[in-house]
Amino acid sequence: MTKRVALLAHEGFPDRAKTAVGVLRYADYDVVAVLDREIAEADPDARVADYLDGVQDAPIVGRTDEAPEFDALVIGIAPIGGGLDESWRPDIEAALDRGADVISGLHYFLSEDADLARRAEANGCDLWDVRNPPSDLTVAEGVARELDARIVLTVGTDCSTGKMTTTRELYEAAREQGIDAAFIPTGQTGIMIENWGIPIDRTVSDFTAGAVERMCVERAAEADVLFVEGQGSIIHPAYSAVTCGILHGAQPDALVMCHEAGREAIHGYEEYPIPDPAHVAGLYEQLAEPVAPTEVVGGALNTRSLGDGEARRAIQAYAETIDAPAVDPVRGDAGDLLESIL
Amino acid sequence: MTKRVALLAHEGFPDRAKTAVGVLRYADYDVVAVLDREIAEADPDARVADYLDGVQDAPIVGRTDEAPEFDALVIGIAPIGGGLDESWRPDIEAALDRGADVISGLHYFLSEDADLARRAEANGCDLWDVRNPPSDLTVAEGVARELDARIVLTVGTDCSTGKMTTTRELYEAAREQGIDAAFIPTGQTGIMIENWGIPIDRTVSDFTAGAVERMCVERAAEADVLFVEGQGSIIHPAYSAVTCGILHGAQPDALVMCHEAGREAIHGYEEYPIPDPAHVAGLYEQLAEPVAPTEVVGGALNTRSLGDGEARRAIQAYAETIDAPAVDPVRGDAGDLLESIL
Repeated sequence: MTKRVALLAHEGFPDRAKTAVGVLRYADYDVVAVLDREIAEADPDARVADYLDGVQDAPIVGRTDEAPEFDALVIGIAPIGGGLDESWRPDIEAALDRGADVISGLHYFLSEDADLARRAEANGCDLWDVRNPPSDLTVAEGVARELDARIVLTVGTDCSTGKMTTTRELYEAAREQGIDAAFIPTGQTGIMIENWGIPIDRTVSDFTAGAVERMCVERAAEADVLFVEGQGSIIHPAYSAVTCGILHGAQPDALVMCHEAGREAIHGYEEYPIPDPAHVAGLYEQLAEPVAPTEVVGGALNTRSLGDGEARRAIQAYAETIDAPAVDPVRGDAGDLLESIL
Repeated sequence: MTKRVALLAHEGFPDRAKTAVGVLRYADYDVVAVLDREIAEADPDARVADYLDGVQDAPIVGRTDEAPEFDALVIGIAPIGGGLDESWRPDIEAALDRGADVISGLHYFLSEDADLARRAEANGCDLWDVRNPPSDLTVAEGVARELDARIVLTVGTDCSTGKMTTTRELYEAAREQGIDAAFIPTGQTGIMIENWGIPIDRTVSDFTAGAVERMCVERAAEADVLFVEGQGSIIHPAYSAVTCGILHGAQPDALVMCHEAGREAIHGYEEYPIPDPAHVAGLYEQLAEPVAPTEVVGGALNTRSLGDGEARRAIQAYAETIDAPAVDPVRGDAGDLLESIL
């Protein structure tokens, strides 16, 4: 039976609730409700379909108590810093008291919160902190390139440019074409969708490449093409270490370059301009080269801020800039990139 | 009073005991003995001076019990994987029973070993795991470039090319010239020498840049020049994440490029050739550029495998290759680089 989940996204749905939107769009869950008290207060009849196209619909409610029966509460929003917003605690407690598990991607581990851990145990429920990496990680051996699978990695000019979405859409398009593909999640949303994976941004930094390599080794045993979810950006002042570790750990055969139309500076670090995406693409290739040479063979442009005509022109210009075919995988079809990728 | 220490380096002194050698060379400790049972068995009168020039001398003994009185036992050797070699346990226990602290840079935390923790407590001793990072680290803010200090970072073509030594020698040469300099340690040996610092290879990968930035912010308040100890290499198949995080977190004004003469492949990853050091230097500059532009302004060549004449020629060729002045900071004088660095 498909797991029934409620998605907590208070005051953030949909634009600041990346995880909730990812789960709605891609996960094999039956979403029975989204919790957003701000929306629910303004409109008691609000539904997901009022905000998002092309995903499963569900009512938007203000509290756990107002949701239909579910098996797990998913924390679908990640505040800056990844802490637990104390105003969410009553909803988490109510979920546990109803016998539901709680799945969280917060940096703050619910399983280490004594009160919640006690309550979970008393109710026979699990607290799954997806951002808690396995304790037996180790350094990379440098073997990903030798694996018997084609490895495709999404890279970007910044965080939140659509790497998870692009990876997932490429994976689904490949599966539809009958290709034996696997999705390698590296962040909390991807892990929640796949029900498997290692949160690369939370590993010990020495083991960053090793953690990605380990997932590739595992999935290469059973799949022909691995689509690896990228993180951050090689030009990001805070997160580039994670990006670099994924690039050298996955040793991808091909890169897909993700960018958001109109974004000119690093999100949250506005004094850091984003160079021409072609320059950033070249930087990824140069950095990969001494370890495992690769090439940007496709592009994904997030055009959510543009109208249809503008978007079409922006995608065309982007393709010319990076000298590779490009799509908006939400507006268009990621499958159009497969020919140049595979 | 200067702390008296014994250095555990069983079967590894001096070539595989990088930490012990670093402590002998740079730390403000009085080393009363080095423990290497292999050497002590072969020659009961062996001394440090038989193996190393230009560092403090001490007897080499086989067991803790044979060492003169000391305040702390320092684990001066780091086996691959960073585990605790169980054959060392009797020496650690004997040190605690003598009332000495134990300072360790192992990945295996002695303070989490129930037996050792109990014994330390019973004897009123401390177990200091220098590789255990502070628990309140966070992401970088991207502010290092704005600090009121010149920041110099050592980078390399590989691990173990002499980055810690070069950084330390530059720092000491600057101090001798009356410059108000600080040393920013990022690995266990540097931390043991400085009695302060964050082990960057053990931080959560998202916080790699942030941890370096935090140390720079702290030291910039009191010093004019910060010499930041680099780690790994941007072309290393396993450790590049750490290197990249340090580069973007420290936002250095100048880079010093470290290489070992004759080394042609990544140590332990022999199927990965090291490109021309000039190419690697260019890669560091290109990777730094979008975040905080910088330049390789000096080079350090480790010539331990060469004779004097060969070494001189190799250093000259290296300087020409990277187009910057170069020295061997052990054989020669790191101070010769200061003019081009500062």
